[in-house]
Amino acid sequence: MQGRPADDHTLRPIGHIRSMLRAPDEAPRQGSEGAPDAWLELIPIFVRGLSGIAAGDEVIVLTWLHRAERDVLDVHPRGDPKIPLTGVFATRSPRRPNPIGLHRVTVREISGTRLRIGAIDGTPVIDIKPVLAAGADS
Amino acid sequence: MQGRPADDHTLRPIGHIRSMLRAPDEAPRQGSEGAPDAWLELIPIFVRGLSGIAAGDEVIVLTWLHRAERDVLDVHPRGDPKIPLTGVFATRSPRRPNPIGLHRVTVREISGTRLRIGAIDGTPVIDIKPVLAAGADS
Repeated sequence: MQGRPADDHTLRPIGHIRSMLRAPDEAPRQGSEGAPDAWLELIPIFVRGLSGIAAGDEVIVLTWLHRAERDVLDVHPRGDPKIPLTGVFATRSPRRPNPIGLHRVTVREISGTRLRIGAIDGTPVIDIKPVLAAGADS
Repeated sequence: MQGRPADDHTLRPIGHIRSMLRAPDEAPRQGSEGAPDAWLELIPIFVRGLSGIAAGDEVIVLTWLHRAERDVLDVHPRGDPKIPLTGVFATRSPRRPNPIGLHRVTVREISGTRLRIGAIDGTPVIDIKPVLAAGADS
């Protein structure tokens, strides 16, 4: 089967997050810190890729943090100047060379092109992956 | 602080995986299935981002599976035609719109620009993230 090569290193959004949170500052720093539910709205041509996902499943949503700076290599974790500068690869900071967010979420509802989950508004979604058993890749 | 915008959706490799495995067919389908150790070789300008990572840490390495087809939306999981077609977002298949691999690995050694870990040869690495506590994002 012939496919388009992935050699160009260019991401294509498969959808977007729609929620009431508008700015990164309003978002909790980790999903475990109480973000409200949001909708992941898929671009219709990608909906076929959801086959096999059901409400109640845990998935990993990958987002492209399009407002993040990409030329930062160390940060004060959690933006706290009292915490020493740390390499970005040792943190979950959105400021990093490739600002990809990983969000482990439970799918609460699937409705047409939309999945109900939790994150910040307008963020392009680039992938959805199943959670594997503990000890395997995650 | 001014940063370059992430709006272009273009990934920049931060390094590459160097190992003895040359073709995707030779690689085990999941990291838990016995891949030998490999070296993650960082491009030198990104080494500062490792500050805070030490041998023994678990990290999540994100790769760009540059040989994968991007126009596939359903697959037979594990390439087994006896398993019904499943949407790619419900699988860890490399064939997906944005062929990003997630690999949870233990850092066994850090030596200059190189980290010893496990995966397939030549795969561009696009990010490294710490593993968070169970129940948080992963």
